[in-house]
Amino acid sequence: MVKFVIDQQVEDIEMPENLKLNTFLKDFYSDCSHPECSFGYYGFAFGQSPFPVPKIVQDALIKNADKGQYANTSGILELKNAISGYNKRHFKIDIDPQNICVGPGTKELIYNLLELFHGTVILPTPAWLGYLPQIRFLRKNYHMLPTSASGKISPKDLEHLILRLQDRQKILILNNPNNPTGLVYSRLELEEIADVCRTYDVVVISDEIYALTTYDMKQFASMAAVYPEGTFVTNGISKSHAAGGYRLGYVTIPQNLPEVLSNFKKILATEYTATATPIQHAAIAAFEDSREIDEYFANTREIHQIMGEYTYDAILGIDGVKATKPEATFYLLANFNHFTSDFHAKKIHFSQQFSESLIVHPYHTAIVGGDSLVLERIDFSARLAFVDYDGAKALDSYATSKPKTLSDKVEFVHQNAPRLVAGLRMLKRYIDDVKKGTDTALSQKQASQVAN
Amino acid sequence: MVKFVIDQQVEDIEMPENLKLNTFLKDFYSDCSHPECSFGYYGFAFGQSPFPVPKIVQDALIKNADKGQYANTSGILELKNAISGYNKRHFKIDIDPQNICVGPGTKELIYNLLELFHGTVILPTPAWLGYLPQIRFLRKNYHMLPTSASGKISPKDLEHLILRLQDRQKILILNNPNNPTGLVYSRLELEEIADVCRTYDVVVISDEIYALTTYDMKQFASMAAVYPEGTFVTNGISKSHAAGGYRLGYVTIPQNLPEVLSNFKKILATEYTATATPIQHAAIAAFEDSREIDEYFANTREIHQIMGEYTYDAILGIDGVKATKPEATFYLLANFNHFTSDFHAKKIHFSQQFSESLIVHPYHTAIVGGDSLVLERIDFSARLAFVDYDGAKALDSYATSKPKTLSDKVEFVHQNAPRLVAGLRMLKRYIDDVKKGTDTALSQKQASQVAN
Repeated sequence: MVKFVIDQQVEDIEMPENLKLNTFLKDFYSDCSHPECSFGYYGFAFGQSPFPVPKIVQDALIKNADKGQYANTSGILELKNAISGYNKRHFKIDIDPQNICVGPGTKELIYNLLELFHGTVILPTPAWLGYLPQIRFLRKNYHMLPTSASGKISPKDLEHLILRLQDRQKILILNNPNNPTGLVYSRLELEEIADVCRTYDVVVISDEIYALTTYDMKQFASMAAVYPEGTFVTNGISKSHAAGGYRLGYVTIPQNLPEVLSNFKKILATEYTATATPIQHAAIAAFEDSREIDEYFANTREIHQIMGEYTYDAILGIDGVKATKPEATFYLLANFNHFTSDFHAKKIHFSQQFSESLIVHPYHTAIVGGDSLVLERIDFSARLAFVDYDGAKALDSYATSKPKTLSDKVEFVHQNAPRLVAGLRMLKRYIDDVKKGTDTALSQKQASQVAN
Repeated sequence: MVKFVIDQQVEDIEMPENLKLNTFLKDFYSDCSHPECSFGYYGFAFGQSPFPVPKIVQDALIKNADKGQYANTSGILELKNAISGYNKRHFKIDIDPQNICVGPGTKELIYNLLELFHGTVILPTPAWLGYLPQIRFLRKNYHMLPTSASGKISPKDLEHLILRLQDRQKILILNNPNNPTGLVYSRLELEEIADVCRTYDVVVISDEIYALTTYDMKQFASMAAVYPEGTFVTNGISKSHAAGGYRLGYVTIPQNLPEVLSNFKKILATEYTATATPIQHAAIAAFEDSREIDEYFANTREIHQIMGEYTYDAILGIDGVKATKPEATFYLLANFNHFTSDFHAKKIHFSQQFSESLIVHPYHTAIVGGDSLVLERIDFSARLAFVDYDGAKALDSYATSKPKTLSDKVEFVHQNAPRLVAGLRMLKRYIDDVKKGTDTALSQKQASQVAN
């Protein structure tokens, strides 16, 4: 039998936790080992917008299905023009279309930026689970930057860390609005971070994929507006347009860095030639100014806010739990460390055991545990995504009659997201059981199932 | 002014020649400096199928424009099933759908395979211009393997090279059918190469993207049929289905290599999550058994053959030129080394100068020179793509009335590919001028334009 040698850095990376979890959940879904249980799980884990892709974008894809020819490496000009206009309208920044590169998803573009720059990566934690495997796979030097109690980067901590790092160049990954906390940096907060970055010539990769989900857009500022000379913004249509499956993102490159731009294009040309042409044409409709898209943004972000506030209130209703109050995205970060000794009494010592004990019968509740968010293994924090509902139905219902009062909104959640409501109740029941010492231990069979 | 530090391996790679050339040609197209000349160029350079994407594939994309959700990392099951069936029908190989991974283009999947395996890469030359920048960017050890006069790998030369390399593991890039020669390895030739690979446990990346363009499919065998335990086949819809712009390819992984498979999936998950979902659904129609696709294959490959034979004959009609006779693809490799001393007399010493002197007025003829095919700079060989015609019109015309006799076929080319005919005449005129010592030198202005 031949045994082929895999490169060490491949062996060293782990499957990104969200995808690993998703695979696990898919197996679990159809196979709960409890007699007579056919229930899958309450989905707080997978971060995908529940809404349909805007019809105007679907129509543009349909109209351009015949575009079989390769596109330019960095994207077709019409699309870059549309992206430039989008940045002006929504973020008040003026990006020359020439300084925009389109790629098959924001994730890959972040990977390409990490390939591009020499230097040590600074990763604020908690973090989206996609960054660390990329950093590790590329064998880059990196250092975590735990955020303060506020859940945001402290400029002082950032400066202290920078002064400790030996590499001349530092690369900060800023994720705003933030996954997993759902928080949005104020312009002032960004300016303080920018001051530090300017002082030390830090390269900032600003992952702003959730920008257009900000509940109150006046709250959002792009890092490119306050630190234009060193910020590489990544954004796309996965979250704001619920089109993760379309795989299209873009990067903005600061002006007057022709070397950086041409080297970046070389990477794209070397690795993947170009992004799918019909998808690029569809994305033009996503980024161009239209009433349909503006309405879609307004309605979907309001629904996210309603679901987020409901989830936040329900979580805070569990005595002892803390949580970030989301201002964007469809996530919040819940902190269950209050129950650490109760967890220990039940032999739950690590966040992974916490997630696993929550997924089995009778709780059937899927979350993303702290270890997957680049937190300490003993930190019982978890990301909750509030997206487990029929987005098309919710969007229709919202467009027909917008809930105004708090009780209208609660009713809207009950009507349109019954699984979300039930899942939050189940989370409370789980915590009650943990506190009471009720048996949450897994059966032998369940335990082995979870372990695999 | 901030100066950011680019990683050295990015600086070290060159923009892949085809894309660089394409950019150059686009600039040139609209800007011939000769007074009153508004002509662009005869396009023998860019290797893109001229045909429309099959209607059944376009329709499948249209039907699935609403698929906004992320797909599985390695591809949706229905697509993998279709690819498995496609391999059975066309290549007589039985690939478990579990051992198929889908990606955003064959190019990126080859890059991912190069990331996966430890070892020294063996690159037979001449070669497609995409491999070397990938190998260099990944800082892999590599060694060229010049092919013999036959244009094909000599098993003896391969073995000699393997014995000289120090790395325990070797990775052979096999490209069959071959770009740039248009040649197809016989099953016997593959078996002799497989014997060597088996002896030394060589990993074979078999780029078979042109498989379905083979003029006589009985001639084609997949390396996976003769060396199943060590062959990783890459294929896709860019060439056979004229859908390069769709960006979809696949890899087949040998059976019983679970470690290799799971590590490969980790790479895909880390870099790009998944391939665009609507495109995957479209590709199902491309790979599933249908009369429409079979007819499309039959007609397009016959047209490629007619164009190829015409081009081959015209090139051989230039006294002193040799060429490979294409058996697949839409390329041939023409060898102009007979005129080396004539070139030298005109201060054309390198293949790049040859390409550049051909593109300017009055010749306006774009080719891919030997240096872009990983040949010596002093080798005056060039790849000619025979695709500069209206593919939709040619396909209609062919379907209406298939040319049978040689003179029918010549007439078909004259009717449907007048630019191809004119370009070949221009190539002859250029060589005549070179031989006669007529002034082909560039004007000052032209020379500086070409140099930029």
